[in-house]
Amino acid sequence: MLSSQHLSDVPGQIEPLVRDLAIRAKAASVTLGNATAEKKNAVLGRVAEELMGPLRAEILQANVADVRDGAAAGLASAMQDRLTLTAARLDAVVAAVRYVMELPDPVGTMTDAKVLPNGLSVGRMRVPLGLIAIIYEARPNVTVDAAALCVKSGNGVILRGGKESFRTNQVLAKAFERALVAEGFSKDAVLLLPTTDRAATTALIRLSGIVDLAIPRGGESLIRFVSENATVPVIQHYKGVCHVYVDGEADFDMALRIVENSKVHRPGVCNALETLLVDRACAAAFVPKVVAQLEAKGVEIRGDAAIREVAPKVAAATAADWDTEYLSLILSVAMVDGIEGALQHVAKHGSHHTEAIVTSNSAKAERWLREVDASAVMVNASTRFNDGGELGLGAEIGISTSKMHAYGPMGLEELCARKWVVRGDGQVRGG
Amino acid sequence: MLSSQHLSDVPGQIEPLVRDLAIRAKAASVTLGNATAEKKNAVLGRVAEELMGPLRAEILQANVADVRDGAAAGLASAMQDRLTLTAARLDAVVAAVRYVMELPDPVGTMTDAKVLPNGLSVGRMRVPLGLIAIIYEARPNVTVDAAALCVKSGNGVILRGGKESFRTNQVLAKAFERALVAEGFSKDAVLLLPTTDRAATTALIRLSGIVDLAIPRGGESLIRFVSENATVPVIQHYKGVCHVYVDGEADFDMALRIVENSKVHRPGVCNALETLLVDRACAAAFVPKVVAQLEAKGVEIRGDAAIREVAPKVAAATAADWDTEYLSLILSVAMVDGIEGALQHVAKHGSHHTEAIVTSNSAKAERWLREVDASAVMVNASTRFNDGGELGLGAEIGISTSKMHAYGPMGLEELCARKWVVRGDGQVRGG
Repeated sequence: MLSSQHLSDVPGQIEPLVRDLAIRAKAASVTLGNATAEKKNAVLGRVAEELMGPLRAEILQANVADVRDGAAAGLASAMQDRLTLTAARLDAVVAAVRYVMELPDPVGTMTDAKVLPNGLSVGRMRVPLGLIAIIYEARPNVTVDAAALCVKSGNGVILRGGKESFRTNQVLAKAFERALVAEGFSKDAVLLLPTTDRAATTALIRLSGIVDLAIPRGGESLIRFVSENATVPVIQHYKGVCHVYVDGEADFDMALRIVENSKVHRPGVCNALETLLVDRACAAAFVPKVVAQLEAKGVEIRGDAAIREVAPKVAAATAADWDTEYLSLILSVAMVDGIEGALQHVAKHGSHHTEAIVTSNSAKAERWLREVDASAVMVNASTRFNDGGELGLGAEIGISTSKMHAYGPMGLEELCARKWVVRGDGQVRGG
Repeated sequence: MLSSQHLSDVPGQIEPLVRDLAIRAKAASVTLGNATAEKKNAVLGRVAEELMGPLRAEILQANVADVRDGAAAGLASAMQDRLTLTAARLDAVVAAVRYVMELPDPVGTMTDAKVLPNGLSVGRMRVPLGLIAIIYEARPNVTVDAAALCVKSGNGVILRGGKESFRTNQVLAKAFERALVAEGFSKDAVLLLPTTDRAATTALIRLSGIVDLAIPRGGESLIRFVSENATVPVIQHYKGVCHVYVDGEADFDMALRIVENSKVHRPGVCNALETLLVDRACAAAFVPKVVAQLEAKGVEIRGDAAIREVAPKVAAATAADWDTEYLSLILSVAMVDGIEGALQHVAKHGSHHTEAIVTSNSAKAERWLREVDASAVMVNASTRFNDGGELGLGAEIGISTSKMHAYGPMGLEELCARKWVVRGDGQVRGG
């Protein structure tokens, strides 16, 4: 295989190389798209076996080398952590593959079946999207998760992982290559780009008519780069600046439980709470309680002027706080004038990810659900439930915050399109 | 209002002008998105009244001027015909608006409702996409059709029609302006670009975060221009090179009826038949029949060498014929080796639009439905049924031949996204 370095030396060779890989992957995707669930599951079963057996030591070794080089290159410790694949984490990756095997195969399933007055039987059949490009950063588990979901949904996939995990990803991709070939498929149905050069990524996301969809997974700058340079469709997932609005008619105990869970359960993920909105009507009673409870959990609170009047020890929030995805144990808190004020704040600062209200007033609840524009709107529940697994999709390849194709978690069904299937007995159009 | 000419003279002013229009339209779309079906129907009812009454003479007059200028500028006669709005055609436009009023409102409807084991009640609620840009050519009826569908689905819309119909479109847009204002909405929810300058179109389709979707409707070069220059999502509808495959096990009478209807019923539209594929097993018996029947209807036939052996008077097809959308009474005919050959031909030359098989063998029928990659796959039915109205969607804003968001006709539901709605009673995530 050509090394990343070698290709970077000869930039003119990158575009044709990527095009050739994609054409091969696209051709392989057709066979995978027509395969039975049994055959696709057999591939995933072999992937799991390879990851547990023959390739296990090689993966862990490659990962140690990646982490060592990352540390030497001054990779931030949070990034080093994301890059690291311990034996336990590898077990979790394998468990995820086995979980995807258990999920129902979406391909070929029908929706909207009906018989029209002219006797035509019509419906919509789920079919794979075709060839998907996944562009991601350090986390090597994405390599396996994404590839497993694509195989199960009958899609070909080209993986472009971060340069930090290049060695690890090469071995992980080998598991798919071996499994595909052992089950009689072309190895090209799951391909890792042999270079992490940006020119290769750019070439990949400009292959209109060959690549059907690009899914960037990672930080805002990566997503922006893909969105601005792609000519193929992109499913965007920008940051999650998620809010909980505690209404004056909320059950305080419930509100405290939901706010704490939304913020503290796993602060580094996109569905975690970033800004708490408190109704002026209950602020004097509620804010001191929630501040005390969250501070006891190690959360740093930043409040607006009105919040600091009822909780004077709280630090002052700046204008930038309201648009910030902390991804850590920091929470900004604003006082709002009832649901109207909360809706306005969310419309201005929300990121169309997850927005929750806590209230016992059902009219306010319904208004929130209807008017808030976000991939998931919630009443009296933790923001942490905006997740493919939690919402019953089984697994997700990402959470879309734009409205095209999918809005919210993308599971196996969202990795499919629906074509119209028409069965007649000789019908023609009159008129 | 600034004239098209004026703006073209000052290109630097176009981008800020278009951005300002779009920001206003986006703001107006929020109110429309939250409106009841009754209010939206009231707007459409007033549009119909304006088109039948106060504005009728002004529209027809403007159209006469547009057609006159088009003729003077040497517009092709087919194009002049598309541009022309007779009184009868205007009546049909009004009837279409009244038809859209009758359709169910998709906004707020729920799908996938379920109660999860933890007691959370979840489901998906249809919401408008937001602000849609429609970029089209000469036909002024698109102005009203597209705007009516957007209003009904709660979306704001910016219309960019062809320069040939600019005067007509200005008056048609006035009907929406008056109707929106009379019902208490902002007139900005339906805006016609005040210039047909290409720079304005380019600016429009690059307004990421403001324009949610661009739908180009028209010839291949327009669609390509939008696809290659947009940074906002685009729903593409490239050409329809549609096939009918007549299998050796077909009922010949049915096959003749379907082929004739697919080709002759309305040859200028995208779901019309362009290439007939005939199974070698029945070619000697079927080809002379179908050639005679179609020639009697004025169809020019172009065959491959094998077809010309069984129908010697047929003209020879060239390589370009297999990829050509004639949109007229021309049909190319190829002989194939059974369903395998037909599948290969369609995979190579099809445009993912509409593909039909005529066969009485159900195993072949099911294989066709499963394996052919097209927005509509059909057994024993005319290709002309791939149409929003015929498939029960009510009306369509276009037919997508790419798989993202919609594959096939786009009706009111496809002009919506689905957000997740979660109702709890205090649930938090454990683990």
